[in-house]
Amino acid sequence: MSLADLTSLPGVTATPDAATHGFVFNHTMIRVRDLDVSLDFYTRVLGFTPVYKHVYAEAAFTIVYLVLVADQSVIPDDDAARKQWALSQPGVLELTHNHGTEKEPDFAYHNGNSEPRGFGHLCVSVPDVNAACARFEALGVTFQKRLSDGRMRHIAFIRDPDQYWIEILQPTPLAG
Amino acid sequence: MSLADLTSLPGVTATPDAATHGFVFNHTMIRVRDLDVSLDFYTRVLGFTPVYKHVYAEAAFTIVYLVLVADQSVIPDDDAARKQWALSQPGVLELTHNHGTEKEPDFAYHNGNSEPRGFGHLCVSVPDVNAACARFEALGVTFQKRLSDGRMRHIAFIRDPDQYWIEILQPTPLAG
Repeated sequence: MSLADLTSLPGVTATPDAATHGFVFNHTMIRVRDLDVSLDFYTRVLGFTPVYKHVYAEAAFTIVYLVLVADQSVIPDDDAARKQWALSQPGVLELTHNHGTEKEPDFAYHNGNSEPRGFGHLCVSVPDVNAACARFEALGVTFQKRLSDGRMRHIAFIRDPDQYWIEILQPTPLAG
Repeated sequence: MSLADLTSLPGVTATPDAATHGFVFNHTMIRVRDLDVSLDFYTRVLGFTPVYKHVYAEAAFTIVYLVLVADQSVIPDDDAARKQWALSQPGVLELTHNHGTEKEPDFAYHNGNSEPRGFGHLCVSVPDVNAACARFEALGVTFQKRLSDGRMRHIAFIRDPDQYWIEILQPTPLAG
C-alpha cells in the first residue's frame, strides 16, 4: 500500500497538526515481578542498557528506563543530561517493579495475550533473525514461537521472565 | 544515579554482548477495537503517520504500523523500502484490529492497569507539556491524570479510544 493510500485511510489525518511537532513516542512501560531477573534478561539477552532508575520509596515501587543502542558512548554521562536524553529518545523500555512481588512465589503479571486481552507484544528487530534465534536457543531463552513453528517462518516470538512476548524479526528479506 | 552505578545494578550485563549489535527496540503492539477510531486518535491527536498496513484475511485481522516523525519526508516512498525502514526504526506503534470487534458495542480490551495487571502505558514526550495538555483539553481528549492531579505535577496521562494510558511529559525541567 502506498504512503498516499495509507494517509488516506479512514480516520487518518494525513498531515500531522503542527502542534504535534517534536512529539516523540518515548517509551513503553511494563510491570515486572523481579527487577534483577528482568534486568538480566533485557541487558544480557537483548543488549539493553539501563539509563535511569528512580525508587519511589513511599509508594514502594522502582522504575528503570532502558535503551537499546549500538554504541553506549552516545549515552550522556551527566545524570541530568542523561535523564533528559532518555526522555527525548524513541524506543525506551520502562520496567516498573512493585516492591515485594519478587518474594511471592506465585505472583505473576498478565501478558495480555489470554483473556482479558489488550497489549500484545514488544518487538526487537535484529540484523539476522536466524543467528539471533540460534543464540537465544543457546542461552536457554523460552520461545513462544520458533521460526519453524506455524506458517510465518520469518518471525519468532520469545518470552521474557514475566512471560511478555517479544517478537524477533529482521527488516530485510530472508535469504533462501 | 551515575551510568556506572546503573550498569552495576544486580543482574545487569554492563557491556552488551556483541551479538546484540544492531538490535533495535522496534515496536509495541496493542489491540484496538475500532481501527478507524484509533487511527483518528493517533494521527490527529498525537501526530503519528501510518507507514504500513497488512490485512490477514484468513485470520481476520489487520495490522497497521505508525511512526511519530517530525518530518514526513524521511519516510521512504517505495513500499518495500518503507517496510524495511519501518522495521528498522525504534518507537514504532503497531495496532492490531481483529475484524468485527468494532461492531460489538460492549467489546472492550483490557488496558493492563486493573487486575490482572501487566502492561502499564505508552509515553509520548512533548516539547511543552502545558501546551500539549491544553491542546488535548481543547480536543476533548480523556485524561486519566491531569497535570494538576496528585503530586506529580510535571506529568499527565491521557487515554486512547481503548482506554490504554498514554503518559505525557516533557524531557526538560518545567519553568517556574
